[in-house]
Amino acid sequence: MTQSQWLHENFEHTGSSIGFRMTRKLDEVQSPFQKIEVYESTDWGNVMLIDGAMMLTSRDNFFYHEMMAHPALFTHADPKRVVIIGGGDCGTLREVLRHPGVEQATQCDIDEQVTRMAEKYFPELCASNSDPRAELLWDDGIAYMANCAPNSVDIVIVDSTDPIGPAEGLFNQAFFESCHRALKADGLLVQQSESPLALLDLIKAMRAEMGKAGFRSFQTLPFPQPCYPTGWWSCTMASKDADADWGFREADAAGKRFPTEYYSSAVHRGAQALPPFVAEALAG
Amino acid sequence: MTQSQWLHENFEHTGSSIGFRMTRKLDEVQSPFQKIEVYESTDWGNVMLIDGAMMLTSRDNFFYHEMMAHPALFTHADPKRVVIIGGGDCGTLREVLRHPGVEQATQCDIDEQVTRMAEKYFPELCASNSDPRAELLWDDGIAYMANCAPNSVDIVIVDSTDPIGPAEGLFNQAFFESCHRALKADGLLVQQSESPLALLDLIKAMRAEMGKAGFRSFQTLPFPQPCYPTGWWSCTMASKDADADWGFREADAAGKRFPTEYYSSAVHRGAQALPPFVAEALAG
Repeated sequence: MTQSQWLHENFEHTGSSIGFRMTRKLDEVQSPFQKIEVYESTDWGNVMLIDGAMMLTSRDNFFYHEMMAHPALFTHADPKRVVIIGGGDCGTLREVLRHPGVEQATQCDIDEQVTRMAEKYFPELCASNSDPRAELLWDDGIAYMANCAPNSVDIVIVDSTDPIGPAEGLFNQAFFESCHRALKADGLLVQQSESPLALLDLIKAMRAEMGKAGFRSFQTLPFPQPCYPTGWWSCTMASKDADADWGFREADAAGKRFPTEYYSSAVHRGAQALPPFVAEALAG
Repeated sequence: MTQSQWLHENFEHTGSSIGFRMTRKLDEVQSPFQKIEVYESTDWGNVMLIDGAMMLTSRDNFFYHEMMAHPALFTHADPKRVVIIGGGDCGTLREVLRHPGVEQATQCDIDEQVTRMAEKYFPELCASNSDPRAELLWDDGIAYMANCAPNSVDIVIVDSTDPIGPAEGLFNQAFFESCHRALKADGLLVQQSESPLALLDLIKAMRAEMGKAGFRSFQTLPFPQPCYPTGWWSCTMASKDADADWGFREADAAGKRFPTEYYSSAVHRGAQALPPFVAEALAG
C-alpha cells in the first residue's frame, strides 16, 4: 500500500459494507487465536482489524466504550467489583475505572496480543491499565466465568467480537448461566448486542438465552457506531432482579466528575426510548 | 452485473465508505440535472443513487423521512401550510400528509425524473401523491422560495442532496432569507444537516448562515441513517421566534393516530439530548 487506498469490509449477513481510507498498514500479528492488523487512516486515526473485521478506530471508539460501561455502572446501585470478558483493547476498562466507587475491575481477554497492539497504537485506551484496581488476565473468558466465585461480582461486561467465530460461546445459555451464578443478587450483565436494525433477530435470540439462564429483566440501548455494520449498534443489559429499576441513578450520572464525549445522563435516558420497530420486535 | 456485487460509495470528505450488495441495476436515466440510477440489493430492497451518491434504500429510508417531518410538525403549534424543497422521492411529503391538520403540502424539486423513478421503484413513498392536499412542482427551489408570498408558510422542509453540487445554493444566507420571509412569525425551517460526527463544522456553518438570515433559535436532532456517511445523520430546525418552545407538542405526538417505525414522542425527546461533544461544538 504505497498511497491512500480504500479498505472495505463487506458484511455478508447484512448485505452492507463499511470502509475507511487508509494510508498504510502499521502492523500485523498472527496470534494463536486470530490475525490482528492495524492501519493508519486519513480521517479516523488508527484502525484495528481482527480476522479482517473492523474492531475500532481512534476516532469513533468512544461511542462503544462509553455505552458499554456507563449505563450499567450508573444503573447498578453501588458497583464495586466489575468483570470484563474480552475487551482486550482496554477501552471499556478505562471507562469502568472512571467510577471512583469501583474497587476492582478484572479484564479477561483470551488474546494478549490484542492488548499489546492497543498499547502501541491506541495508548489512550490503555491509560488506566496500571491503575491498582485493574487486573488484566489473558485467559479463556468462558472458563473464567465458570470458575468465578458465586455471588462475587456486581457487573459482568461482555465486550466481545461477533457471535460467529471465537466469541460464539459468549452468546449462549451455558455462558450466561456462569455469569448469573457469579453475579450478586442485584448484579447486572451487559453484552454488546449488534445492530438493532440489521440484527434484531440476534438480539431477540440473545435475550432469550439470557432468560433461560435466569436473568429476569432486560434493557437494550442503541447508539451510533460508524465502524460497525449499519453504523448503529447496541448494548443489552440483563438483571438478575425481576424488579430492576432501569430508571438508573440519574442524578449521579448528571453530576459525574469525569469527561465523556457521547454519554450523558440525558443521552442515557434518550437511549431508553426504543424506536417503535425495535420495541415491537423485542416484545414479540 | 451478472451476479451479486458490492457497490461502495467512498466519501472523499469523511474518509469513510458505505456499500451494499446489489443483485442488478434496474434502471438509469440521465436527466437535465443529474444521473439517477436504481439498483436492486440483496438485503436493502431497491437503492437509488444520484450522480453516484446513495440517496435512499427501501429498507432504511424511514429513519430520514420520519425525522425530517414529524419533529417539526409536532413542534409547530398548528402547521397548515408546509413547503418541501427537494424531496423528489416523495417520502417526506408522505410523512407530512399523515398530519390531518395540514391543509396544503407543496413539494418543489427541480428534477421530475427523481419522482418518476420513485413512482416506479419506491411506490410506497409516493402513496400520498394523489392526496388532494399535495401539490407537486418540478421547479427551482431557490426561485420558488424567493417568489413565495411573505408570511404564508408554517414550515419549510429542505430535503436536499449534499451542499456540494446542485444543492449548494440551499445552504446559504440568501436562500435562508427567502425561507425566513415566506414563513409566518411562528414558522419553522428544517434542513437535513449531515453527520453530527464527521460534518459538525458544516452544521455549525449552516446554523450561522441561518442566523444571518434572521433565524433566532436552533435545534439539531441526530438519528441513525445507515446509507449515509458514518451511518449517523441529523436534521436541524430553525425558528423565527427566539423563544421557540422546543419542548414540542409531546402529548399530541404520543397520541398520534398514524404508524411510524422510528419516530415516537420518546424518541423525539431522546434526540433532543445532544451528546456532549456535539453540544460543545455547536455552542462554541
